Amino acid sequence: MNISDVERDALYKVIYARRDVRREFLDKPIADDVLARILSAGHHAPSVGFMQPWDFILVTEQATKQAIKQGFDLANAESAAQFSEDKRAAYQNIKLEGIVESPLGICVTCDRQRNGPVVIGRTIKPEMDLYSTVCAIQNMWLAARAENIGLGWVSIIHDQVLRDTLAIPDHIDIIGYLCLGYVSKFKSKPELEEFGWLPRENLERLIHKEKWSVKND
Amino acid sequence: MNISDVERDALYKVIYARRDVRREFLDKPIADDVLARILSAGHHAPSVGFMQPWDFILVTEQATKQAIKQGFDLANAESAAQFSEDKRAAYQNIKLEGIVESPLGICVTCDRQRNGPVVIGRTIKPEMDLYSTVCAIQNMWLAARAENIGLGWVSIIHDQVLRDTLAIPDHIDIIGYLCLGYVSKFKSKPELEEFGWLPRENLERLIHKEKWSVKND
Repeated sequence: MNISDVERDALYKVIYARRDVRREFLDKPIADDVLARILSAGHHAPSVGFMQPWDFILVTEQATKQAIKQGFDLANAESAAQFSEDKRAAYQNIKLEGIVESPLGICVTCDRQRNGPVVIGRTIKPEMDLYSTVCAIQNMWLAARAENIGLGWVSIIHDQVLRDTLAIPDHIDIIGYLCLGYVSKFKSKPELEEFGWLPRENLERLIHKEKWSVKND
Repeated sequence: MNISDVERDALYKVIYARRDVRREFLDKPIADDVLARILSAGHHAPSVGFMQPWDFILVTEQATKQAIKQGFDLANAESAAQFSEDKRAAYQNIKLEGIVESPLGICVTCDRQRNGPVVIGRTIKPEMDLYSTVCAIQNMWLAARAENIGLGWVSIIHDQVLRDTLAIPDHIDIIGYLCLGYVSKFKSKPELEEFGWLPRENLERLIHKEKWSVKND
């Protein structure tokens, strides 16, 4: 099947317009057919040995979101303490999640026992099943953006909070907790770039020819 | 920026048409501008704390590819021994890489020290930088497909072989070795599904409402 130049450019548009969204969520539900398309995009990610190790837990209840938000708050206070004093105030001013404001949370997990125990392609690099699940998340992230839905990945929370709150069995790995919803706008640049936390790296300096090369400033 | 329905459908077309490619590579080089678009798509993946921890090592030299292929062969023999006897013959018949036939290899790595040591969003879940790099690979995979270029992820190789062959420093993590090239065709289904190694999971059974639910057959 051939992809046309117009279709190719649409992919690039979505890739460049995708943001990690933590604010500007609207109180507008995501229709079932839209959500089904986003989940199906995740389910059609590549997976090692066609293992498809992912599961998706959909969260809409306020009490559940509040429990997860509380877990974030505790983990975020711990995190702030890790930053040097000169960066701490700036860190504490950044909004890093939209757990309660977003209409839908999705916890994406990895069942490392699925279709095992010996999985093609995981024999030498055991983390490949975790990486497959991340590919599913990236597909969902792009699909959400293509549906004009914002998605934010909340990583500042202990897995145990999600495990307890969502009754996730011990043998299931937690990869990410995602917040989804329509938004009033998408920023033109990543927020951390926009307000000067870090600049965009120069891609040319990240490309090496034939072997690793040390690049001096 | 709004994404139109036509653009959304183009994304889905690329997601569904993407394959893990190990054969059918053509002896046709990838033009510099096409490669630049694929790498830029990777570079515009989400990254934890805007860390952008990735590097891309481009491999075109035959001697290098041969060394990597040799590493694959050894790891693949090790891997075959892990399968039960009834599956081993089937496993050994599957072509799992196109290292030498594909015109371009790209080793994608993760520099966990970049923009650190304390990275926003990595404070509680340290593997987030590895996951960011996987998001870059998935962007590249989709970009390659949108350029009608096949991409295969070779995971059956010890990191040390890639490290030695490509002179990758010890502090850099190796995430994936990718083989890219134009192909005579893309399969309509994943190869492991097509020949009956494993079926496509039923997505409905992977979706849980509000909490994890045990689904019985």
